[in-house]
Amino acid sequence: MPEISIRGKQLPESSIRKLVPFADAAKDKGVHVFHLNIGQPDIKTPAHAIERIKNFDFDLIPYGNSAGNLSYRTKLAKYYQSHNLDVEARNILVTTGGSEAISFAFKACFNPGDEIIIPEPFYANYLSFAQESDIVIKTVTSTMEDGFKLPAIEKFEEVITDRTKGIFICNPSNPTGYLYTKEELHALELIVKKHDLYLLSDEVYNEFVYDGKKHCSVLSLENIKENVIMIDSVSKHFSACGVRIGSLVSHNKNVINTILKFAMARLCPPILGQEVAEAAFDSPPEYIQEVYKEYLKRRDYCINRLNNMNGVYAPMPQGAFYSIVRLPIDHCDKFCQWLLESFSFRKQTIMLAPATGFYKTEGAGINEVRIAFVLKVEDLEKALDCLEEALKVYPGRTNK
Amino acid sequence: MPEISIRGKQLPESSIRKLVPFADAAKDKGVHVFHLNIGQPDIKTPAHAIERIKNFDFDLIPYGNSAGNLSYRTKLAKYYQSHNLDVEARNILVTTGGSEAISFAFKACFNPGDEIIIPEPFYANYLSFAQESDIVIKTVTSTMEDGFKLPAIEKFEEVITDRTKGIFICNPSNPTGYLYTKEELHALELIVKKHDLYLLSDEVYNEFVYDGKKHCSVLSLENIKENVIMIDSVSKHFSACGVRIGSLVSHNKNVINTILKFAMARLCPPILGQEVAEAAFDSPPEYIQEVYKEYLKRRDYCINRLNNMNGVYAPMPQGAFYSIVRLPIDHCDKFCQWLLESFSFRKQTIMLAPATGFYKTEGAGINEVRIAFVLKVEDLEKALDCLEEALKVYPGRTNK
Repeated sequence: MPEISIRGKQLPESSIRKLVPFADAAKDKGVHVFHLNIGQPDIKTPAHAIERIKNFDFDLIPYGNSAGNLSYRTKLAKYYQSHNLDVEARNILVTTGGSEAISFAFKACFNPGDEIIIPEPFYANYLSFAQESDIVIKTVTSTMEDGFKLPAIEKFEEVITDRTKGIFICNPSNPTGYLYTKEELHALELIVKKHDLYLLSDEVYNEFVYDGKKHCSVLSLENIKENVIMIDSVSKHFSACGVRIGSLVSHNKNVINTILKFAMARLCPPILGQEVAEAAFDSPPEYIQEVYKEYLKRRDYCINRLNNMNGVYAPMPQGAFYSIVRLPIDHCDKFCQWLLESFSFRKQTIMLAPATGFYKTEGAGINEVRIAFVLKVEDLEKALDCLEEALKVYPGRTNK
Repeated sequence: MPEISIRGKQLPESSIRKLVPFADAAKDKGVHVFHLNIGQPDIKTPAHAIERIKNFDFDLIPYGNSAGNLSYRTKLAKYYQSHNLDVEARNILVTTGGSEAISFAFKACFNPGDEIIIPEPFYANYLSFAQESDIVIKTVTSTMEDGFKLPAIEKFEEVITDRTKGIFICNPSNPTGYLYTKEELHALELIVKKHDLYLLSDEVYNEFVYDGKKHCSVLSLENIKENVIMIDSVSKHFSACGVRIGSLVSHNKNVINTILKFAMARLCPPILGQEVAEAAFDSPPEYIQEVYKEYLKRRDYCINRLNNMNGVYAPMPQGAFYSIVRLPIDHCDKFCQWLLESFSFRKQTIMLAPATGFYKTEGAGINEVRIAFVLKVEDLEKALDCLEEALKVYPGRTNK
């Protein structure tokens, strides 16, 4: 039997996905599982966008433009302009989810063996995209004590080598919910300029920013316009994860033209999803306001409830819909599996994401989990009831 | 400004896509362009499949299973079983088009620098997928004289090195329309077994096989079950190129499990497209029979007409809807550009794919083009009127 590739073997299995069989087994036993482990909101996709598909008048679903439909790219450009960002349709490529945008950016910007710096904890799949292009991730660690703010620029300088070609952030951050400040972004601008690096920023949660804060996009950094690549998606913005429509924005023509070559090879992004995405941007402003208010309510309930539990700490997320939460437990992988395998409360349990999957540093995050507040408050309440009870009886509890 | 990656720079621009600005300019001048350059059929997607989307009762479009919906994989398995292939849902991964299936297979099976052998002429985008994974394509040349049949196995042996890890075929072939015989597949089976290679087969045109011939899938090769990966798609089968739904089939568990890891990183294939694809398999048998008859009519008209032109030769394709056609011209790239830039007949012209893009061997195919018979006979007639007139007046004609 022929061998699997080295990158295929080395690709880590998702620590969340490893728990799926245990969740399935719990469900088979009749236990209801609250999924706070994944960013799949229960929020409705705009009705307007779904109507577009139902009323679309076609009898053939042909290939579209490899760069994405011009009408959609034009609409996206207007959206960014309304956020005071200087973006034209020509700066945008439509991708099959934000995932493909990241994958394309990695391929177009980095050679095998090149290094990129990512503040940890970070979205676990970045590791997979790096691995498939043979790119090396170096990390600087942000800490819960500091609310997961950007690590000091000296920490970046310490890990920069002659193979370092980029810095990659997620803003607001999945998994921490941290929102980078203007000052932090300017600090990144300086180091990126100094070493002539790429600065990639995953901004798919940019509509979810709380407490009167303002999201600052890397596209607003005037001194490094050619270095910047912004990644976006309608998945969370319009609760339309399944349409698989993302986008990549850059003022660097070489980047856009190179990625277009990769995009041409895969022919086009999904046509039906693009229709939904384009229509979604015509949703009434009330849609996103309602969604925003809903997340705010969930966040406040979830974080306050967590911080009232004995031995639990969760910094207040300023964006996105995640929090990295410290628990009084011996090991998050063990605990998350135990929740599914050995625990239930009122025939219910909770599925969480072990934080170890978000750190590259060995041993980091072992007493942390990521909680996604993607369920309605009524469900969050039941889910956190489970967590509270679980922590009382978990055999591996650390401070009893 | 930071540099573009080496693979990004080296990625060839498509010789077809290079002609697009000339086609656009022709259209701007009011010239109608018949597109025989691309496999985008004018055939309708099954009405039944489009209805599924229109009547689908959802208010949220969430992520789906990374492997693809189980209901769809089960339906696909039944379809393959009806073609006497031993395939279960667990052997199938649903992908974002056949493109992603190829890309996944390359990443999972081959290391950077590994070599795969492909009979040329071959579908140009294979080169892009190889390049993005730093895989080297070696070719064996099939010739028009031999009707593009499989090159002798000795030719394969000649290019095998210790870096050779796979053989990749397209059956029936885009761009030649050649259908590999059972004997040819058994010859491949022997060499694959001997060197323990992967055998990848792109079979997206398997429904389009003419003259009473039978398509022989690599999945039927009993002695190399663990070596074989079959790539499929609904794009051509159901004239649904824009839904971006393909599939990858293998009996090798390591391959499936490894690719599933890559698939998890990109979360899921498009949900709406999957709905269309699943419904398409419930289309009445008349749909595919009608489509088949239509292509047969187009093929017969197109190839007979071409072979009646002075100095033109087109072997009769036994499958797919392409033919590599020899023309009495100096250079196909020049000719195809000239057709768009400097020629029109009754305010019409024709866009063809220069065959140079389908060969890796320098200088091969310079007097050949690929013609896709994807338009109705009425349009094919006008398009070939253009070609006939063009060949009379083209300044670079070779045998006057």
